[in-house]
Order: sequence, then structure tokens, then C-alpha cells
Amino acid sequence: MAKNIMLFWGSGSPPCWRLMIALEEKNLQGYNNKLLSFDKQEHKTKEVTDLNPRAQLPTFKHGNIIVNESFAACLYLESEFKSQGTRLIPDNPTEQALIYQRMFETNNLQEKMYDVAFYEMFVPEEERHESAVKRKKESLIAELKLWESYLEKMGKGSYLAGKIFTMADVVCFPVVAYFPRLGCPKERCPRLMEYYDMVKDRPSIKASWPPHWLENPKGPDTLKNL
Amino acid sequence: MAKNIMLFWGSGSPPCWRLMIALEEKNLQGYNNKLLSFDKQEHKTKEVTDLNPRAQLPTFKHGNIIVNESFAACLYLESEFKSQGTRLIPDNPTEQALIYQRMFETNNLQEKMYDVAFYEMFVPEEERHESAVKRKKESLIAELKLWESYLEKMGKGSYLAGKIFTMADVVCFPVVAYFPRLGCPKERCPRLMEYYDMVKDRPSIKASWPPHWLENPKGPDTLKNL
Repeated sequence: MAKNIMLFWGSGSPPCWRLMIALEEKNLQGYNNKLLSFDKQEHKTKEVTDLNPRAQLPTFKHGNIIVNESFAACLYLESEFKSQGTRLIPDNPTEQALIYQRMFETNNLQEKMYDVAFYEMFVPEEERHESAVKRKKESLIAELKLWESYLEKMGKGSYLAGKIFTMADVVCFPVVAYFPRLGCPKERCPRLMEYYDMVKDRPSIKASWPPHWLENPKGPDTLKNL
Repeated sequence: MAKNIMLFWGSGSPPCWRLMIALEEKNLQGYNNKLLSFDKQEHKTKEVTDLNPRAQLPTFKHGNIIVNESFAACLYLESEFKSQGTRLIPDNPTEQALIYQRMFETNNLQEKMYDVAFYEMFVPEEERHESAVKRKKESLIAELKLWESYLEKMGKGSYLAGKIFTMADVVCFPVVAYFPRLGCPKERCPRLMEYYDMVKDRPSIKASWPPHWLENPKGPDTLKNL
């Protein structure tokens, strides 16, 4: 099955990483893949844009099926390989509800983390404002408090949607992993960091760990002053 | 079934509207609901925050299950009421792939539309820049071109993911509906506007049309100069 798969990806991109975790969890090791450099703009070359007019990574193909949005590709893999590897979404709609809820809340956490950690990368110098930085920091701190309260309520040793590892963890873990990497003070999110420590050595996650993070375990300290 | 449901919603919010379309499609008419005013900050009252710590709309409860993220609630409804009303996601993973892809691409269209149409609402006056407005407009125009190309490729009379109405249409239509309302020149997205005309009178959509849009069919012209 894995021989039918082609993935173009970038190191450290949460959307790429979550899809790679899903591939591992579904026992699809050995899939074809190509690591591209964002810095060299390799995601804008024809081999990508032929499959993905957005010129973004991940760009993912299974047989004749192209699914590039990372959430879409994860849901597709779970559906196509339902009984293979880890069941990431159970059949029971009641259990699904919380998994879906946390999956889509991940967009908030990701966006707010990016807004702070990559402010200078995304906002041209002449458009930067201290007031915006302050507001975005407050918004990220409030977001972290929410996730802390979720983990607090579920109790020690919980995954994001309960006692087992699910699609909520697949999509959210790569975002969570940015907080220690970018120097976020542990006091801002102690439970999230406990969760991080619990999950980071899971085989699917270790196998897909961003290669440039392995080379340079400490990233820029852009969350140090949060 | 519908008697077990409680929805808090705001008029014109795409996340609320998509969930209301899904409720109609799944034949859940008669659900309990309360229209709240964003202007009066009614979404920040205790009856909402008890169910939704984000104090956002929609806030949605079915029995004891709370699912507030609109994509999550739509997926939950489709799963819980699979054989009731319209099938919005087919069983076949190959067919699901394109539906998921377009569903999640909707986030791009929505965000880029908001960035232009509601720039002055979201960005404090002292942080506004002509250069940012220009860049955001270009980004929205490029996004519209993508959707135009999708519809072009699928042929006249197509829905967003093929020949039938699916979850892709449920989640995306409320965003598409903003373009004519906010005065976007038709030349910017002629195929999307054909799609809009084809879908706007569908019973689920008419039944959930934002009440303040019925009262005032023309919104502010914030997309006029796109």
C-alpha cells in the first residue's frame, strides 16, 4: 500500500508532521517521500504545483487521489486504512465528538502560536507594532490556559481527547512540540509540557521527528518572553 | 432527536450558518436554539461560557455532548445521524478525499475574505497599513482564482466536490455568500457566483438564511474594490 503513496514535505512544518505521524500510526512505513527546503523555495517547483496549486507542503498523493490539506489527508488515511494500525477515530459518535472538537481547536493554538513565534517572519518590518505583539501574546496565553484546563480536567496521563491516543493527538502534537523548542517558559503550560513528555517518545512521533530539529534541538527563543 | 439539541448562534456568522445548514440537511428541524447578538456581547454571557469557554458561537449541545467547533459539530452530526436526511459524506474513501480537501480549503477562503472585508473591524486604526491591505487583497484574489479553477474543471452545474451536494458545500457556502453580499465584483469570481445562484435557494440554505440579511439584503460594500 505504502508504495502507492508519495509525500512532499518540509522539516518542522506542523501540517507535514501530523500527516507523517498518521502515516506511521496506520503502518504505512516505506511510503515514497521527498524532503523539500522551504528556504530554497523548493515547494514552489513544478513537481509540487502540478499536484498542489497552492504550492504548499504537505503535498500528498495515494494512487490517483491527491489530498493536500493536512486535516483532510489525515481523515482520508483513517478512513481508507480503517482497520490497519492504530484506530485514530473510533466508530462511536459520542467518542468522536471530543476528538473532533480538539482537532479543530488545534487551529486556534497553531495560529496563535505562529502569530507570536513567527511575527517577524510574517509581518514586514514597517507594519510591526508593539501593541499588536502585546495583544497576540495575551491571546496565546489565554489559549494555553484553555488547553491547560482541558488536561487538568481529564487528569494525569491523559491524551488530548481521553485515555487513548487519537487523531486529536496526531494533529495537535506537532504544534505542542513548538513550545519547548522555542523556549516557552514551562510555567505557561505545565500540563501541556507533561503531555509533551509523555508523548514525544511514541514510535510514530520519534520516527517522524523533524530532521533539522534533531540536528539543532534548540530553535530560536521566540517564545521565551511569553 | 431535535428536542435534545440546543444551539446558541449569531446571525451571519459562517461557522453558525454551516452548522444550521447541516442540521437542516440531517432533518433535525425543530431543534432548540437561541439567537444571540454579537453587538450586545451576548455570546460572552454565562449561559454560553458554561458550555463554551471560548465564548464563541456556535455553541452546540446534543444530549450531554458539547461540540462547539463548527467543523467538528458538522462531522459529529453526519456521523450520529448518518442514515437520516442527506448523506453529506459518502462511505467511499475515494469520494471522501475531495470532500475533505475542499472542506479544509474553506478555511483559507474564509480567512482571506475576513482579512479584506473586515480589516477595519479586526485591526486597530493605529496598526493599519495600505501595504497590508494591498497584500491581503492580492491574496484573496489569488484564492478566488483557485476556486474558479476548481469549478471550471468540474464543469457547469457542479457542486464544490462533484455532482452532488456534500459536506464541502455545507461548510463553504456561507463563506461564498459573503462575496455578493459585500459587493465583490462578479468578474472576480463568475463561476463561484454561478454556484451561489444554483445553491442559494436550496431548502436547507433558505431555512437558515441569516435573519439580518433578510432584513437588509445589502451589506457594507467592503469587497467592492477587490
